[in-house]
Formats: sequence, structure tokens, C-alpha cells
Amino acid sequence: MASTTESMSRLLKLAHKFNCFYLSGLQKGDCRPFVVEGQQVGLVRPDVAAQLARFPEVFLVHSDVVELNPAFRDYNERSAKVDAVLRRFRTDGAFIALKGWREECYEVRAAFSKCPLLKMDRSATCLFGIRQYGVDINGYVLCPERGMCVWLQKRAASKQTWPGKLDNMVGGGLSVGFGILETALKEAAEEASIPRSILDQKLTPAGSVSFFFESERGLFPNTEFVYDLELPLDFVPNNSDGEVESFELLPAKEALDKIFAPDFKTTSCPVVLDFLIRHGFVSPDSEPEFPQLIELLHVPLQSLYNRTQKSRRLENGDISSN
Amino acid sequence: MASTTESMSRLLKLAHKFNCFYLSGLQKGDCRPFVVEGQQVGLVRPDVAAQLARFPEVFLVHSDVVELNPAFRDYNERSAKVDAVLRRFRTDGAFIALKGWREECYEVRAAFSKCPLLKMDRSATCLFGIRQYGVDINGYVLCPERGMCVWLQKRAASKQTWPGKLDNMVGGGLSVGFGILETALKEAAEEASIPRSILDQKLTPAGSVSFFFESERGLFPNTEFVYDLELPLDFVPNNSDGEVESFELLPAKEALDKIFAPDFKTTSCPVVLDFLIRHGFVSPDSEPEFPQLIELLHVPLQSLYNRTQKSRRLENGDISSN
Repeated sequence: MASTTESMSRLLKLAHKFNCFYLSGLQKGDCRPFVVEGQQVGLVRPDVAAQLARFPEVFLVHSDVVELNPAFRDYNERSAKVDAVLRRFRTDGAFIALKGWREECYEVRAAFSKCPLLKMDRSATCLFGIRQYGVDINGYVLCPERGMCVWLQKRAASKQTWPGKLDNMVGGGLSVGFGILETALKEAAEEASIPRSILDQKLTPAGSVSFFFESERGLFPNTEFVYDLELPLDFVPNNSDGEVESFELLPAKEALDKIFAPDFKTTSCPVVLDFLIRHGFVSPDSEPEFPQLIELLHVPLQSLYNRTQKSRRLENGDISSN
Repeated sequence: MASTTESMSRLLKLAHKFNCFYLSGLQKGDCRPFVVEGQQVGLVRPDVAAQLARFPEVFLVHSDVVELNPAFRDYNERSAKVDAVLRRFRTDGAFIALKGWREECYEVRAAFSKCPLLKMDRSATCLFGIRQYGVDINGYVLCPERGMCVWLQKRAASKQTWPGKLDNMVGGGLSVGFGILETALKEAAEEASIPRSILDQKLTPAGSVSFFFESERGLFPNTEFVYDLELPLDFVPNNSDGEVESFELLPAKEALDKIFAPDFKTTSCPVVLDFLIRHGFVSPDSEPEFPQLIELLHVPLQSLYNRTQKSRRLENGDISSN
């Protein structure tokens, strides 16, 4: 039996908020698997499926699945065909999500360790429920007076998503052609001007968080690779790419309070929460729903999409389009 | 599509080993939910169900569910009735698991944050697939020459489970009447004679791991609350309760190699692995299946048992025993 919202701890309520799709939309079952080369890579909402059905030479919209035309031969052909449709949607104004078009692509894969099947502009991935991967750096200071303090950023008012919201010190998506550590180093330089000498000495991978969020833009099954970075007491981050309005150093306990505020970017809460848990600021003795909370910081995104076209053929005898 | 065993990284293979029930047995579906007061609290294998059916005044063994007699009024009555049956099984020699009878009970709950419904000897919980909770302490040293080093223990040859195997420095189950931190402090004193002054200053909660293991003894859905403890360079743990044969200090990288050895207690691997991930010794750039690995360190045990007697009544109209 699921706990009712009323009886939950406020941390568990927050974990339900950033997993709103995992805990409700997914169960409703009104999204269809998005299948490429016989492998499920995403989920498509009914409103998106209706638009995709306008391009039957690219998307085969069946009653129970949306399939990328299996006649496309390879990564490049798939990527080009999808891109052409997405640019049509962008011109039409069919989806809010595409207002954030980036000319920056994410890989589409059946699982993180599998070969990419195509690439897609990052703004469009939420229309198909494609798993997104990002990198986040928890910048912290061991302050003699205030104890552990955490650097947070306030996003620029001009950002396409979550403008003006509070966020982790440094974060960025994993684009085509960039490694994980490489992305962390690039973002640390661009967003916070952190010298390479500090990064080389102190940047430490510390795991990952996974959650499944839904907004009016679409579906966000996100995995964030997290890094911890101890910074010198006198270091002050300084933005160099115009994406950050300001930085703020807060004692860890105050950072914990901040993530409940409406001006904190919802999809960055898991990263801060994971950091505070790993460093002892949320303990199982003080948080009655600790195991549930940890589960909701690591939802099983890699095993969520396990439908294969093969099993569908076996189940249904054949594939009929609607 | 699941990766084949051959193509997996060795860390992912290990994660499959300590999740052998989660990844195979659970899917087979030959275990029946164990229901108490309308709430699923565990799973019962066919061999166990057959034995439970000998005591129909205590266990109602239906074709699709095993139910504790709902006529039992409260925690005490349920605990006493189950205990009486288990002591009969113990005398009979019906189950290997009960050779490890402890006279130490674990709570049985629908979820960690829910009220206990009954208590049961810890040796018997694996017969019912009851979620077990434990506490583990990662003792480490920041060595000037060798970098981060980790203390491991070799279990005493006389231990009822996993005798002579390598294990975390300190670990223990969460028994009835003991808090999480309280258990950590007790076990640190008993198993490794760690002075209270060090624990008060340095013991830090650092999250939890969850996995679902199966052995010939039964089913183990385990959540371990993990603590990190930085120890002084000159501190040497010393066992005081006869449960540990020896302790060994290893560089973190060697500890990573140790967990692949057959003489490492399988169900302690997740704790060491989580520690090494959190401290940067396994990174997403070096481990291609990092997201899958993290998922398998945090399988969703709290949401696994979600069958309620109410939904069963609605589905089937009524409850019929077989």
C-alpha cells in the first residue's frame, strides 16, 4: 500500500514530485513504447503520437506501439529522417518543448551501454521519453566555522528551461561526442570558471541518481552522473557563458531547506538530496522513510524499457498498423 | 533486452549474483505473496508453502497467496502463533535456515515506515521473504603512502552463516527494539572494539543499499544502512565477541578486487561496492554499465510487495482456500 501524501515526510513528498511520472503516469498506461530497430528506447504520450501519425513514412503509429520506420538502414539515416520531421514540428509550433531547440543532440539507445541507434535534438527527447544523461558537480567547502557548505547557482533569466531557478553549482547534459568526465570538466569551466588544477586534484565521481519526471514539455527519464568537488575556502565561482545569474554558498543544512522551495529547479533536487544523504545530513534515524527515499533517487530506468519487437511479434502473431 | 552474461562487465555480473532472486526467481512467479492483516509482507517458495499447509490454524495456504490467519488479534498473538510453528519446524529439521536459530527477532512490516505486524526469529525470515534491515560500517584510513585504505574482517569459522568469509569491517542486523544508529554503535563496539569517542566524532550515515538474494536457505530482500567511519592511522580493530577471526587493511583498489573472490560474503559485496563508488574508485567513465550497476545496488524493495488483500477481494470476488 502506497503511503498517502498527507502521511509522508516532506523529503518523500519531494521525491514523489520529481518522480511524478514514475509514480503515476507510468501506471496509467496511456503512453506507447517507442521502438527503434526492435528495441524500446522511449515512451510516447497520446498527443505526441497523434502528431507523429502525420508522418507515416517515418513513424509507424500502431495502437500499442510507435515504431521508427524499420526500413531506415543506419544511425545516420534514422537521425536525418527524425530530424527532418522535428524541424517541421518546430516550424508548425506543434510542441512547446521544441521552442527550446538547441542544435545539440543526445544519443538514443536501448540502454546506456548499448550502441546509439540515432541522435536527436535534446529539446525533442522529452517528446519520445528518451532517457537523458547529465553530469552534475556538487561544489562544497569545509568551513571551519559553519561546517560543510554547498555552492548553489541561480540560473540566468534568459535560460530556455527553468529560468531564474536555484540549481546545483554546475550541471550539463551529455551531448553526442562528449564523455562523462569530459562534460564535467567542460561545464565546470564554462559555468563556474573552476581552474583545471583544482578539478584535476579534487573532482571525484560519486555515483548517479535516476528519476522520471513529467512536465508540460514532456517526459524526462533522467540519470545524472554526480561528482563531488571540494573547493578552497577562498574560491568563488564565476560564470563565463552567461547561463548563471549568481552563485551562493550555503551551510549544508540550509541547502536542505532550499530544495523544498518552489524556486528550486525540481529536476536538480535529486542531486542535492543524494549529496546530503551521502554526507550524513539526512540519516535513516531522522528520516522514517529513508529506504523509500533512496529507492526514489535510483528508480530502475535501465530496466524500464524492456519491450522488444520480437516479443511483440510472438505475442500478436503479426504487426498491424492502425 | 537484458545483456547476456558474457558481455557484462565483471561488476555487473557481481551485481547480478547478489540480485539473483530479483533478476530471475521473481520473474518465474512460483512464489506466493505472504499476507498479514491484508498487506503483503513477503514471498513464500513452494517448498515452504507445502510445510506451512500442515498448520492450517495458523497459515491459510491458498493457490495464489499465503495468509497469516486474520483471526489473530494483534502483534503479540501473531508473533506467538508463528513462533510456535517455527519451533516445531526447528525440532523437525524441516528447514536448513532454522539451524541458525538465534533467539533474536526481526520486525515484520508492510514497509519500513509502517508499524510492525509481528516479530519473527531472524533465522526464519528468509523462509517468508521478509525484508531484512541491517547496518554496515565502512571503516577506512586516509593513508599518506597508500591513499584510501579499507578495513575488512574475516568472519569466525564458528559463525552460523558465511563462516570464514571476508566481510565488511562491521555489520549487524536490525533486531527488535534497536534503532539504526544504536545498532551501528553496538556492533562497532562488539565486533571491532571501536572507542565511543571515535564513533561520536566520525561515524557518518551515508545512505543505503538494497538487493534481493536467494540461497538454499531462502529469500533475502536486504536493505543495509551504510555508515562511513574514518579511523586514525594507528587504530587497529580488535574483536571482542568471538565473531571475527581477523581484520585486514587494504588499499581501496585491492578491496575492489577482493569482492570478486569466492571467499567474500556475497551479501556484503553491495556495501563495499557502494562505498567504492561513492568515493570515486568506480567511475562512470571506466564502468560502461554504471547506470545498471547503480540500479542493482538500489532495487525497489519497498515497492515490490504491493499486493493488498483488498485488491485481491476485488479481483476475485472472494477468497477461496485450496
